[in-house]
Amino acid sequence: MTKLSMGMIGGGKGAFIGDIHRRAAALDGAFELVGGVFCQDPDESRCFGASLGLHPDRLADDWRTFLNAEANRSREDRIDLIVIAAPNHLHVPVSIAALEAGCHVLCEKPIASNMSEVDSLLRAVERNDLLYAVANTYLGYPMVHEARILSLHDALGPLRKVIVEYTQGWLSEPIEEDGQKQASWRTDREFAGCAGALGDIGVHASSLVEYVTGRRITELCADVTAFVPGRLLDDDASLLFRMEDGMKGAMTVSQICAGEENNLTLRLYGERAGLEWRQQEPDTLWLKSIDGRIQKLRAGADRAYLSAGARARLRLPAGHPEGFIEALANIYGSIERAI
Amino acid sequence: MTKLSMGMIGGGKGAFIGDIHRRAAALDGAFELVGGVFCQDPDESRCFGASLGLHPDRLADDWRTFLNAEANRSREDRIDLIVIAAPNHLHVPVSIAALEAGCHVLCEKPIASNMSEVDSLLRAVERNDLLYAVANTYLGYPMVHEARILSLHDALGPLRKVIVEYTQGWLSEPIEEDGQKQASWRTDREFAGCAGALGDIGVHASSLVEYVTGRRITELCADVTAFVPGRLLDDDASLLFRMEDGMKGAMTVSQICAGEENNLTLRLYGERAGLEWRQQEPDTLWLKSIDGRIQKLRAGADRAYLSAGARARLRLPAGHPEGFIEALANIYGSIERAI
Amino acid sequence: MTKLSMGMIGGGKGAFIGDIHRRAAALDGAFELVGGVFCQDPDESRCFGASLGLHPDRLADDWRTFLNAEANRSREDRIDLIVIAAPNHLHVPVSIAALEAGCHVLCEKPIASNMSEVDSLLRAVERNDLLYAVANTYLGYPMVHEARILSLHDALGPLRKVIVEYTQGWLSEPIEEDGQKQASWRTDREFAGCAGALGDIGVHASSLVEYVTGRRITELCADVTAFVPGRLLDDDASLLFRMEDGMKGAMTVSQICAGEENNLTLRLYGERAGLEWRQQEPDTLWLKSIDGRIQKLRAGADRAYLSAGARARLRLPAGHPEGFIEALANIYGSIERAI
Amino acid sequence: MTKLSMGMIGGGKGAFIGDIHRRAAALDGAFELVGGVFCQDPDESRCFGASLGLHPDRLADDWRTFLNAEANRSREDRIDLIVIAAPNHLHVPVSIAALEAGCHVLCEKPIASNMSEVDSLLRAVERNDLLYAVANTYLGYPMVHEARILSLHDALGPLRKVIVEYTQGWLSEPIEEDGQKQASWRTDREFAGCAGALGDIGVHASSLVEYVTGRRITELCADVTAFVPGRLLDDDASLLFRMEDGMKGAMTVSQICAGEENNLTLRLYGERAGLEWRQQEPDTLWLKSIDGRIQKLRAGADRAYLSAGARARLRLPAGHPEGFIEALANIYGSIERAI
Repeated sequence: MTKLSMGMIGGGKGAFIGDIHRRAAALDGAFELVGGVFCQDPDESRCFGASLGLHPDRLADDWRTFLNAEANRSREDRIDLIVIAAPNHLHVPVSIAALEAGCHVLCEKPIASNMSEVDSLLRAVERNDLLYAVANTYLGYPMVHEARILSLHDALGPLRKVIVEYTQGWLSEPIEEDGQKQASWRTDREFAGCAGALGDIGVHASSLVEYVTGRRITELCADVTAFVPGRLLDDDASLLFRMEDGMKGAMTVSQICAGEENNLTLRLYGERAGLEWRQQEPDTLWLKSIDGRIQKLRAGADRAYLSAGARARLRLPAGHPEGFIEALANIYGSIERAI
Repeated sequence: MTKLSMGMIGGGKGAFIGDIHRRAAALDGAFELVGGVFCQDPDESRCFGASLGLHPDRLADDWRTFLNAEANRSREDRIDLIVIAAPNHLHVPVSIAALEAGCHVLCEKPIASNMSEVDSLLRAVERNDLLYAVANTYLGYPMVHEARILSLHDALGPLRKVIVEYTQGWLSEPIEEDGQKQASWRTDREFAGCAGALGDIGVHASSLVEYVTGRRITELCADVTAFVPGRLLDDDASLLFRMEDGMKGAMTVSQICAGEENNLTLRLYGERAGLEWRQQEPDTLWLKSIDGRIQKLRAGADRAYLSAGARARLRLPAGHPEGFIEALANIYGSIERAI
Repeated sequence: MTKLSMGMIGGGKGAFIGDIHRRAAALDGAFELVGGVFCQDPDESRCFGASLGLHPDRLADDWRTFLNAEANRSREDRIDLIVIAAPNHLHVPVSIAALEAGCHVLCEKPIASNMSEVDSLLRAVERNDLLYAVANTYLGYPMVHEARILSLHDALGPLRKVIVEYTQGWLSEPIEEDGQKQASWRTDREFAGCAGALGDIGVHASSLVEYVTGRRITELCADVTAFVPGRLLDDDASLLFRMEDGMKGAMTVSQICAGEENNLTLRLYGERAGLEWRQQEPDTLWLKSIDGRIQKLRAGADRAYLSAGARARLRLPAGHPEGFIEALANIYGSIERAI
Repeated sequence: MTKLSMGMIGGGKGAFIGDIHRRAAALDGAFELVGGVFCQDPDESRCFGASLGLHPDRLADDWRTFLNAEANRSREDRIDLIVIAAPNHLHVPVSIAALEAGCHVLCEKPIASNMSEVDSLLRAVERNDLLYAVANTYLGYPMVHEARILSLHDALGPLRKVIVEYTQGWLSEPIEEDGQKQASWRTDREFAGCAGALGDIGVHASSLVEYVTGRRITELCADVTAFVPGRLLDDDASLLFRMEDGMKGAMTVSQICAGEENNLTLRLYGERAGLEWRQQEPDTLWLKSIDGRIQKLRAGADRAYLSAGARARLRLPAGHPEGFIEALANIYGSIERAI
């Protein structure tokens, strides 16, 4: 078994998600990080790469130079997968450049900030016949997969209503004014794009709804707010929405729900049963029938009642918690199989 | 100690809430049921009253006759409190007649179906200088009172956002077509008025929000649905709303959330902290600070950290659950003190 | 319907359990308190009785006088049920005197402090052909009944192991030295008898085990401790025990588990499944199968999957919590039916 | 940064824990697996090693040959850490041989099956001045570390009582008779040693107690059972125990608690407060005070209220679950720092 090679753009020192990508990629032994550009400062980036044990040949001053070098390598020698963990405004240009250089891409969300960017991206994918994946980490949880299987295989009956929420409290205060790195770029239109909380976490809520139901959101009505004085991008939104096949939904997305940690929750109701999943207890999926019966489905590679897909996304028997990194590693696993 | 006398209109055999009112009124020993009219059929009503041990003098063929008889009694002999547990369309006329007869009133929700009815009711209250109370049972829970105290005494900081939901699943199927009594009148415009789920349980959700925050809902935007084929009144609604002082909110009210029992939940967020209360675990109130600290406040007459008001609404030390009947008994306790 | 008449010995002002008995007896409308002796001081007792609205004829200076008076009444006029809520040392003498006076008895636990007392009591019951009941309140919970039904009807397979615990923290400090009334008599050998925590709450744990399993405890090995300096009676015990049919068990009983409220918990395991019930969430019973399936059974008069006995002990549909008072009211309900 | 090199004895195909060790070692990028002997069959072992991408030079027919080869290498070239994931009977001989070969050791539990083996092991450690570590995975959880810090820094007051349990249900049936690999060796005296459940999971329970309290267990009394017919080693035990400084405890260890997954739970009570940790929800630590206040402490690298040690064991902000593999990776992290 030879590992797939991986390069990274962004995700340097102090970045939350870069480290997590490196861990998730390493977890199941399928990927090996070989190079990258980790931040804007060339020296800092090279120094960080060296601390990861990377060869200087695979470190560069900026992402364009780095990807050009890959483009000039032979196919065998070229990096298999470019992981993009840079701020939002770089997602589209780096993705396109990596695809043009002949590398598969795994990009952090959000994909883009408008539809014309999405079009350019799609054309680059088609032109180069390569894989483009988005790091919808939460979709990597085994019990989210199980929820999708139950929903699509009619365990709930025809679907009617979905309630999704993603609430956090960490932007309750204007911490971007004190230079908190995570907060600063997320609340800055230049780096984050046109959306604040909606772009940062709302995309997880909507992709979770569409993934589990297998239906598209078709209409929406929203009340979008920036509660923190001086903040230009939204930090809170409540939405009503409609989906294909007559489904209706309610969504709350907020980063000013003081005291909430990372509360992504999905509840889905069909004619015969409902299900409930909470990211902060990811090993459990509740299935509730109209006759009052409530089942607590539990993650576990040894749980025969789970779908094959859910079991394949688990590494441990029931009662041995798997978490966020494992969920992202499942995304890497899907990419490995797809490549 | 002499007990206050109580009469009841509605709440006969097979009615869910009548029995509960009788139990709640008896629990703390302050009220004694002495008469009433329990259903439309005179014989059935008298028979039911006799089974409760009531004297035939205080049973009548219909509520008008019953209340006329009270009006003709001396003040000392007259029933102190009329409890109205009849279907919605009777709430306003019976309330007014009881007030005109010189009795205090405790009426089931909803109060009325339009503002002109509310006006008539208010005039009757003022004219007779008597007490008119609504059975907002959920506001009787001690930890709801505690939530209000925390909210009004600035434990959360200036309030920003509220998320409330009241979801049930029992109307997921058209059980009204099979003659289920509770379902039949609730889905019939003649008895229930113009609102289905919104009138039946939405009023609990909105009164909970306004009671705990001490603010009024000022604007709303709703997506209202009757999911069950053939049903004329709404069985589901999602709402965005705004409140005084710049607060915003999201509300979900549904009786087609398959598998949900009686899921009334409130989450309220201020600048410094959030709180969470779930009716199905009514003894617990969560208080979550922006610094990440989470406190589980627990009901208990022996809990010195609770407000005096919350402790006065409790009968038992912590760890001895009190429930729905106790919450309604707290409403009766408030009425007793007010009378 | 005429109510059954009830007298009470003990349970005066400041007593925890007296008030609860009065509420539980009133809840379902089957009993009416007509008299009693509520504490040792005759004036205080009469004054308290008057505050409850009782007639002076049914108040006396001491319990012997009170019960003698009942003995001298005609059977029709005599009090139906004597409820004994006095400290432990009075349980046996008052019970016997009440039985000899011709009244049924409901006595607080513990029944007695040795087997010879039990024998005297049994003889008095047989001699007078009356009902003698113990207020094992926790056995009145509907989901405890359901647990018993599941266990006896082989839903778990042959039983193997039981883990029961009853932990509280309120005696972590020597509050009896400050005159706290509940603590004082419970830690005083004269009033409490030979056992502290074991007599006060251990009896609930053992009766719960024997009731749900339908088996007797046959052997035990215990480590019994008085942790609080100066305390003469045990405030903590851990026990290993064996039961009929090869079952084994572990029990923890403690009143010095700092921070615990009223944590009575039962877990029972058979060859095919296990069940779990926690008094602080009494509406839920967990049923866990060896194939990994976990069911959350929920209390609700409308839950068709529950046994008829559990449903008969419920007043409300699922999602409307019933608590400790309702559990004790169920004991009163059983007594009413038995009388 | 150069990674530390690692070899593995045991943990081949179908072994539960071998894969987990490889993942945990890879997670934080500090160790690189370079060789090993993975099972008894030489061909199967080499084949498995090749599938992991290991060089044939670092694969051998048996563990003695493998460790002899390491002994003959220069110190620079020698493997840094030998991880032992073979059945229990090999723990001591392989550990000693690895130490004599000049390698640090991380061995699965249990350490040994008697005290004379422990002595031999200790002498080998001292003789070679190398690190010997045991894979007490559960001690790697950040909130277990926090519990220890709270306990040792007197947050609970002087310690009194501890309740620990480790219950599983997977050996409720004689699955060893059907050749289930995990069950077979664990119930076989030759491979597992003299203890069944006590050796397999009881050691986790006792090490958790001693680690968090900082006290030794000094006396114990146990009821040990093999419930499954034909099983020679214990599958269930309940224990009373005493610890240094007057502490007392209760322990339940069982693999026949039908329906339990991997239920390791610790509750510890001091004079002023108690704490509770449940492995199946490892991110939460409950702290309960005698005044009734209950705090829910939550894992999160961003939680300033946690000890530095707990935060250092976390990779993610609160609300992003970390699990069993991360706990074991924390053990590897401690070893890396110690080396």
